[in-house]
Amino acid sequence: MSTVIGNIGELVTNEPGLGEGPLGLLRDAALVLDGGKVAWAGRSADAPAADEAYDAGGRAVLPGYVDSHAHLVFAGERAEEFAARMSGRPYAAGGIRTTVARTRAAGDEELRANLRRLVDEMARQGTTTVECKSGYGLSVEQEERAVRIAAEVADEVTFLGAHVVPPEYDGDAAGYVRLVSTEMLAACAPHARWVDVFCETGAFDEDQSREVLEAGVRAGLTPRVHANQLRPGPGVRLAVELGAASADHCTFLTDADVEALAGSETVATLLPGVEFSTRQPYPDARRLIDAGATVALATDCNPGSCYSSSMAFCVAVAVRDMRMTPAEAVWAATAGGARALRRTDVGRLGVGARADVLMLDAPSHVHLAYRPGVPQVAAVWRAGVKQV
Amino acid sequence: MSTVIGNIGELVTNEPGLGEGPLGLLRDAALVLDGGKVAWAGRSADAPAADEAYDAGGRAVLPGYVDSHAHLVFAGERAEEFAARMSGRPYAAGGIRTTVARTRAAGDEELRANLRRLVDEMARQGTTTVECKSGYGLSVEQEERAVRIAAEVADEVTFLGAHVVPPEYDGDAAGYVRLVSTEMLAACAPHARWVDVFCETGAFDEDQSREVLEAGVRAGLTPRVHANQLRPGPGVRLAVELGAASADHCTFLTDADVEALAGSETVATLLPGVEFSTRQPYPDARRLIDAGATVALATDCNPGSCYSSSMAFCVAVAVRDMRMTPAEAVWAATAGGARALRRTDVGRLGVGARADVLMLDAPSHVHLAYRPGVPQVAAVWRAGVKQV
Ligand SMILES: [Zn+2]
Ligand SMILES: [Zn+2]
Repeated sequence: MSTVIGNIGELVTNEPGLGEGPLGLLRDAALVLDGGKVAWAGRSADAPAADEAYDAGGRAVLPGYVDSHAHLVFAGERAEEFAARMSGRPYAAGGIRTTVARTRAAGDEELRANLRRLVDEMARQGTTTVECKSGYGLSVEQEERAVRIAAEVADEVTFLGAHVVPPEYDGDAAGYVRLVSTEMLAACAPHARWVDVFCETGAFDEDQSREVLEAGVRAGLTPRVHANQLRPGPGVRLAVELGAASADHCTFLTDADVEALAGSETVATLLPGVEFSTRQPYPDARRLIDAGATVALATDCNPGSCYSSSMAFCVAVAVRDMRMTPAEAVWAATAGGARALRRTDVGRLGVGARADVLMLDAPSHVHLAYRPGVPQVAAVWRAGVKQV
Repeated sequence: MSTVIGNIGELVTNEPGLGEGPLGLLRDAALVLDGGKVAWAGRSADAPAADEAYDAGGRAVLPGYVDSHAHLVFAGERAEEFAARMSGRPYAAGGIRTTVARTRAAGDEELRANLRRLVDEMARQGTTTVECKSGYGLSVEQEERAVRIAAEVADEVTFLGAHVVPPEYDGDAAGYVRLVSTEMLAACAPHARWVDVFCETGAFDEDQSREVLEAGVRAGLTPRVHANQLRPGPGVRLAVELGAASADHCTFLTDADVEALAGSETVATLLPGVEFSTRQPYPDARRLIDAGATVALATDCNPGSCYSSSMAFCVAVAVRDMRMTPAEAVWAATAGGARALRRTDVGRLGVGARADVLMLDAPSHVHLAYRPGVPQVAAVWRAGVKQV
């Protein structure tokens, strides 16, 4: 069954050939969805007939958000740790290890229900493509379970056995890296497309990160890297060297890091919700864009450093605190996320793209930053199926 | 008909006598609503029977938000001006005057529909008490129309004829102040409870502000003041001197201003959405609270400097950027707003209070800051009537 969405006040296609500017903006537009794909996009007056008609009433329509970085297979939460951190109170927090203990103790059904709850919450907010990482299991069985459950629900699955060194390997990071790169990888690779590592002082150093990523590549996975989040480091350089799809966080960059990203196919994925929730300084999106790097925005949704699933919130903070224009931020949250996942079928609304459609209860994409915090989702389709 | 809401995981009563801390927190609680008021609050196990039962499923329940500062009688919007400002592009903006022109040209029905749309949007987000100012009419007839329409919909109405000097009085601010303080006031006072003035360089100076506020007092209105938003100035001092219910913005304060607020009944109403939307520095809530001042949070919802209607967003930004604890921010958005409006029937959930109830889709009030941008409203009652 085909659907025509007519009377669209502003259509963001992300197809520069189709409309104005990098967003490929069309006014007074229509969109036809058929067989789960975009069958037609153009001026409302020229729209072909379809089985079903939907009147956008002058509202703005954009591609569904592509959230290319999230940690959603976990149990429990850490609201008390958050409240203590924001109140300047001491808190004997185990950080990621708290969630690891809670996740290991949870049954499959609890993990699956929590994952579905979060992906549904994302869908209601207009996110139609979700990447999901493992990383709270940290044993062969637990990590295999995490990527397996993630693959049931998420669009893209990332093996992040190298998230932190688990308690069993205290003082033996090398031993853990060996496990991750061999037995754990072998168990997880069939369920995943990506391999990721937290390359940071206190997690995994450059050599350890390289060992994990290169093993992942040999197993048929493509790298992405948690890089330069808390201080300058080798993460971005390593990501570019290994042809990673994305270097994520990019909060502390040297000029050489910026140049490396600009001269590569590696996307700089910025996660402003993390800086918001930890009172860290924000990454400098302006510097990256002006240098020619490709920037994506994602939530990093996880129970520790950022428990927001809202891409609209990321857009608003990116405009306020990272000096992105509203148009750049919307592009980064849609087309940018697709680039970071090396997907050409999502993050755009040209003919042949997956029919992932977000209709705002607003006349323009600018309203996402202009009206921060206000729920503005009027309707969502994913692969042509109405979700909201 | 009475309603019992049982199985509340965490109940914020804002009644220190009823529960723990300034929020008067109760766990495993229940609430009985009857005749539009709270009839009973306490432990779930002790709850009396009622005609209707609602299971909160362990969720958190708080008083509906009290948004004590909003400008909602206007037509049009200024998204392009916003986009230009955030993109560093020049824009020939008329600022408030743009909205004045658009509002004057609008029919009553357009103004009424826009106001209702915004108040409904607020209700869906958990705001159950709304203050609404005039200030985009700036003539006797237009201001009278604005407060009259506001009074049909909003809980509290504020006469803000002294918002800016209108074009007709260019170069004659004194003449405009005389009009505001006499004929315009006489036309507006019957519809309003409050008189407000924008005391700021470029708007109204100390003497002009005093003239307007004192005239308002003589007409039976109580003052509130837009004070110290863009630079230090006389606004806060004047507000305290005249016994204003609230000094709003309070972004640039001297030590004397902080002391004056701390030693007064004047609430410091902070509007972080404005600083978010204009890239201004945030007011220092920590300094005010530590000095003993009463702090409220409100949206300032308006089409120019902050088009957010989200109190949850204000809470999250207040925690991140104004050093409020999650508990302080939630108190300020509920009980603090009630204090700023000198209301004892809202902003709390003790027996006899208006049954304005916000149920979160979360187990704790902390989640408002812990999960920024995520819509977390599960249900809303206003005066005992379910809104959402
Ligand atoms: Zn992450
Ligand atoms: Zn205001």
